[in-house]
Amino acid sequence: MRPSGRAANALRNVEFNVGFNRHAEGSCLVKFGDTHVICTASLDEKVPPFLKGSGKGWVTAEYGMLPRATHTRGEREAAKGKQSGRTQEIQRLIGRALRAVTDLTAFGERQIKIDCDVIQADGGTRTAAITGSYIALHECFRLMKEMNAIRAIPLIDQVAAISCGLYNSQAVLDLDYAEDSNAEADANFVLTAQGGMVEVQATAEKRAFTDAQFAELLNLARHGTGELFGLQRAALAAAAAR
Amino acid sequence: MRPSGRAANALRNVEFNVGFNRHAEGSCLVKFGDTHVICTASLDEKVPPFLKGSGKGWVTAEYGMLPRATHTRGEREAAKGKQSGRTQEIQRLIGRALRAVTDLTAFGERQIKIDCDVIQADGGTRTAAITGSYIALHECFRLMKEMNAIRAIPLIDQVAAISCGLYNSQAVLDLDYAEDSNAEADANFVLTAQGGMVEVQATAEKRAFTDAQFAELLNLARHGTGELFGLQRAALAAAAAR
Amino acid sequence: MRPSGRAANALRNVEFNVGFNRHAEGSCLVKFGDTHVICTASLDEKVPPFLKGSGKGWVTAEYGMLPRATHTRGEREAAKGKQSGRTQEIQRLIGRALRAVTDLTAFGERQIKIDCDVIQADGGTRTAAITGSYIALHECFRLMKEMNAIRAIPLIDQVAAISCGLYNSQAVLDLDYAEDSNAEADANFVLTAQGGMVEVQATAEKRAFTDAQFAELLNLARHGTGELFGLQRAALAAAAAR
Amino acid sequence: MRPSGRAANALRNVEFNVGFNRHAEGSCLVKFGDTHVICTASLDEKVPPFLKGSGKGWVTAEYGMLPRATHTRGEREAAKGKQSGRTQEIQRLIGRALRAVTDLTAFGERQIKIDCDVIQADGGTRTAAITGSYIALHECFRLMKEMNAIRAIPLIDQVAAISCGLYNSQAVLDLDYAEDSNAEADANFVLTAQGGMVEVQATAEKRAFTDAQFAELLNLARHGTGELFGLQRAALAAAAAR
Amino acid sequence: MRPSGRAANALRNVEFNVGFNRHAEGSCLVKFGDTHVICTASLDEKVPPFLKGSGKGWVTAEYGMLPRATHTRGEREAAKGKQSGRTQEIQRLIGRALRAVTDLTAFGERQIKIDCDVIQADGGTRTAAITGSYIALHECFRLMKEMNAIRAIPLIDQVAAISCGLYNSQAVLDLDYAEDSNAEADANFVLTAQGGMVEVQATAEKRAFTDAQFAELLNLARHGTGELFGLQRAALAAAAAR
Amino acid sequence: MRPSGRAANALRNVEFNVGFNRHAEGSCLVKFGDTHVICTASLDEKVPPFLKGSGKGWVTAEYGMLPRATHTRGEREAAKGKQSGRTQEIQRLIGRALRAVTDLTAFGERQIKIDCDVIQADGGTRTAAITGSYIALHECFRLMKEMNAIRAIPLIDQVAAISCGLYNSQAVLDLDYAEDSNAEADANFVLTAQGGMVEVQATAEKRAFTDAQFAELLNLARHGTGELFGLQRAALAAAAAR
Repeated sequence: MRPSGRAANALRNVEFNVGFNRHAEGSCLVKFGDTHVICTASLDEKVPPFLKGSGKGWVTAEYGMLPRATHTRGEREAAKGKQSGRTQEIQRLIGRALRAVTDLTAFGERQIKIDCDVIQADGGTRTAAITGSYIALHECFRLMKEMNAIRAIPLIDQVAAISCGLYNSQAVLDLDYAEDSNAEADANFVLTAQGGMVEVQATAEKRAFTDAQFAELLNLARHGTGELFGLQRAALAAAAAR
Repeated sequence: MRPSGRAANALRNVEFNVGFNRHAEGSCLVKFGDTHVICTASLDEKVPPFLKGSGKGWVTAEYGMLPRATHTRGEREAAKGKQSGRTQEIQRLIGRALRAVTDLTAFGERQIKIDCDVIQADGGTRTAAITGSYIALHECFRLMKEMNAIRAIPLIDQVAAISCGLYNSQAVLDLDYAEDSNAEADANFVLTAQGGMVEVQATAEKRAFTDAQFAELLNLARHGTGELFGLQRAALAAAAAR
Repeated sequence: MRPSGRAANALRNVEFNVGFNRHAEGSCLVKFGDTHVICTASLDEKVPPFLKGSGKGWVTAEYGMLPRATHTRGEREAAKGKQSGRTQEIQRLIGRALRAVTDLTAFGERQIKIDCDVIQADGGTRTAAITGSYIALHECFRLMKEMNAIRAIPLIDQVAAISCGLYNSQAVLDLDYAEDSNAEADANFVLTAQGGMVEVQATAEKRAFTDAQFAELLNLARHGTGELFGLQRAALAAAAAR
Repeated sequence: MRPSGRAANALRNVEFNVGFNRHAEGSCLVKFGDTHVICTASLDEKVPPFLKGSGKGWVTAEYGMLPRATHTRGEREAAKGKQSGRTQEIQRLIGRALRAVTDLTAFGERQIKIDCDVIQADGGTRTAAITGSYIALHECFRLMKEMNAIRAIPLIDQVAAISCGLYNSQAVLDLDYAEDSNAEADANFVLTAQGGMVEVQATAEKRAFTDAQFAELLNLARHGTGELFGLQRAALAAAAAR
Repeated sequence: MRPSGRAANALRNVEFNVGFNRHAEGSCLVKFGDTHVICTASLDEKVPPFLKGSGKGWVTAEYGMLPRATHTRGEREAAKGKQSGRTQEIQRLIGRALRAVTDLTAFGERQIKIDCDVIQADGGTRTAAITGSYIALHECFRLMKEMNAIRAIPLIDQVAAISCGLYNSQAVLDLDYAEDSNAEADANFVLTAQGGMVEVQATAEKRAFTDAQFAELLNLARHGTGELFGLQRAALAAAAAR
Repeated sequence: MRPSGRAANALRNVEFNVGFNRHAEGSCLVKFGDTHVICTASLDEKVPPFLKGSGKGWVTAEYGMLPRATHTRGEREAAKGKQSGRTQEIQRLIGRALRAVTDLTAFGERQIKIDCDVIQADGGTRTAAITGSYIALHECFRLMKEMNAIRAIPLIDQVAAISCGLYNSQAVLDLDYAEDSNAEADANFVLTAQGGMVEVQATAEKRAFTDAQFAELLNLARHGTGELFGLQRAALAAAAAR
């Protein structure tokens, strides 16, 4: 029995508030249950130095958490003067996930900067951030197309992420904080709508898991991202219709 | 004529979403038009070292802005590794404003940490932050009272803040970004419901202003905070009734 | 009765040692009683990036305090690796105060960097710094004029600053440390010789003050800066005559 | 055809120089071909604050690379003043991998600090670091046992790590730099001798990979770590016999 | 011929203003010609952690330079967020020099913190700092003795420092900036009144120097510190007589 | 009697492993007994800004120590976020020592960056680093000559460094850690094969030493570097013959 009463393969309630921020070229407030993340996409007409003259663009991401997004207040990273290893690990992951479905040769020497800021956390912030950032990135490209900066939206596939884990020896989908903090294993899958794998991160929290358990987690993840792809498409269609 | 079409003494639409954050002891999402600030109050059972053994408590504040809260993306302070002078100036101001209406001897050796995070900015973020933080602080004390940690809410007055400025040579209330970036003078007033002044910060942006102009600004501020005190009381009453 | 025995509207003994530093383009050691601040103006032939190509110049300021300028030794900011919020707040104030009386379009794309370093502190360091920096800036411009880099000294007004406060419920001028650390309210006024207000910063230290008390403080400040303007002019005249 | 001429399932030449450092409680210089990493284990009689009074111990790791370990010189992290995101990600991974095979309740309130310093790099530094650190940790525990600080070596399984990837569409084992920098996908597996999975990190470098390809990579990894476990045991036996 | 017209073995005009700072337990403004350094000694009733419980005291030093102490403005270390290698090298040297003449067992578990701040520089700031710090330290001990915190001043010898160098192939004493920036070799000697050597730092600036040249430099240094010891004694006697 | 049983004028066993690193343009693993330092020379086709357009080159150095190079583990400087004063002092010394024997006008606007990383420490790391870096620098120049980037190796003399000290009142050569940590005086000499002095750093650890003692130390240093010059030449000849 899961703390939330959900079935093993049930996602939390997922919502996308597309266009949440009035300044950003693309934006989305994504909610996976009580986990709420603001994702914005900011267009920068300059690429990083290593791409100058290459004709290629870049997508990068930064991640942060408000100090009181969590059950107990965490120290503000800006006040400490550095980003934690966890923060850096997550923002690198988000960037890689988005670049894997973007044709970097098809929008000129421009950079899209994604900001994912967790305003309330209840487990699964990185998977919510990736899933919501795909929408913010899409909306940024849609605006660029409307402005005739590009001919087509340079996304070659659709990407979403979900966590799975072993909780009380059972494989479960989309862990909330109560599960996450007691799981025996914890995995994050970044998958595409065409059936590709973009990133897998699986970690034994207490002791090693088996190949069979890992296969179960992957199965659940395929099921969960299947739902997320549908929800993303619906949210983007609704936004386009406005 | 103001860019927004407002009368010289008109506030923007002001809203308080009390209890916005499910983890914090007190919280409020405050909106002054398109300026949106999440204010949380976190109770810490320890005071800073300089108060240890004094029997007194403390209220302090931190302030931040999401990178894309603004028209163009600003650099993330956590990534730069330090808080700007502006950030530090504002967070010190918020802390002083709240302490001025709090009886620091009446809630034990505890510290309340206020976090003000701007998720969308359109001018006046520091005044919205102070006005919303008062509510978050009040709610934190209300919870402490409910838990029997204190006997009474140790707030000795009500505090709110508003900006005024000279725009096209006219004194106007509650500047939005379009006005703020072109004002001849810019002032922030932190005032109390009992008619006290807690903080005044007035700055000539282009050239010095006169004593008479300053008096006009103060007048507008008294008018504006009068309205804010009413709105704060209504929001707190509604929250208490839930 | 004030600790120093001064009348409520009496300044401390004020001295300007113009040309104190042999290297700087302009310099002044300013003393407000036991508060001693070295102010230097350094000419830089480059403007900050945001002004490149604008034809305009800039004036900026930095502020510091020797570790043992104070009664008890403070930690060295260079050793701590960052400037405090207080330091940043003060240096931003000094810069704004000087720019308010400078015609930034009249000395080319150059930057004047003001350094204010407190070598001994007894309250009122920021007001002494502003008052002395005006002289250092003036001397820098005088040298530039002598070198034919500019036609006229681009100062459009004269600026000085003074603190006032409520001490034992009485409004007093130019607080020293003994008063400052026990004042009920503390205000800094940056005023001009032509009667303009450039900056007002008033803070309730213990409880809120009234509009009438604020008016008294402003009155004292006008009286105090009146004296300071005369002393500045005398010091500049003496320096010019050398 | 691989650049090195190796078969798809062939490891590079692997060597363990056990006891390389004369000061450390446990140490090993590990070589995977031209990738050379010094691993040391340092015993600290104090645990981190979050474990004080718990009766449990801790294993943690730090990772670094000499500036000229790589083909072109990288900036020194100590000179830049911060560790990169990549460094932090790797050192967190090493710590988790070792803790997964350590009985943290069986060596008292002590901390073992692992340092992995790459003195020459040619791909696969993190997998070499984990594989060598297991030996350094083992040797540290062996010394503690010899000193009668513990009764038995508190390692519950044996851990090793290896990289696999898709290179020219073929699954290959233990990528060197020439392969790593051109791989389509890149995975690191941390596995145990008893058949458990401790960590999986798989990343699509160019485009998403399939479930079948992932299964192939895992297969190769099982093959590679099988060899590594044998080599680790031989090296430890030789060291014990000295 | 030296730029200043001084004889090869002539010091600049040296002055000690004892008690320059009204707050510090000991202080001295030292001038070696146009090099002016404020030296303060601050008594701290706590020793650093490594001496806790040892019964011994400690003397340490910090060094800084005002940004416009030099011919062209240097960046402020507090603003840059770190002390340069040169600063750290000098402050370590000052600390070692003073500890070499102090009986650390004779003033209890206390720490004297020396601050040397260069307010104007013209070469030789570190030697002026050491020579002036000796006086500040002496005065701090004298005050402690007056307060009956110690029985006797725990200085076992007298220390001073002077620079020597090869300028136009000639050995000269007490280099000013014009000489220092063109010297072929540059040496700093920290010597004691009883004829001891405490520190020698000699550096070839352009090419290596000979043993004979080094001997000449040492000779000059002995001559120079001989004069400095006399001047220190005179300054201390005058201060004691006040 | 020395702890190692060596004669007063005996070096430890010295070895140079030339070409230790396969990536660097020049490299050497140098061993002075149990002190082991990896020295690499990296060619950079750009000079620092202050030399742009001068036609001159530059040689600079960085120094580091692995955390467990020492008897007890030291904190990692990259993790602390700054280099210690000691580190900066040593790396500045290494750079000066090498530049003193290099003709900076004879290899174009290029920079050679020396990295000295101590992998095991037993006293004398800075002198081993200088002595080994000379070889790394030489090898870098030899490669540049082979590639026809320069006509001749621009080294005008040969440089080596050795420590001497007073241990049990006796002058001894090449102190190991056991001696170094108990020496009464400690000196480092950087000398050239043609008999020049490049750097002298002598420090009284407990009390001041005499001129005669200093002369003894210098004598020993001349003896020690004599041997080192021979060993450097032999190592370079062997490397050239390969």
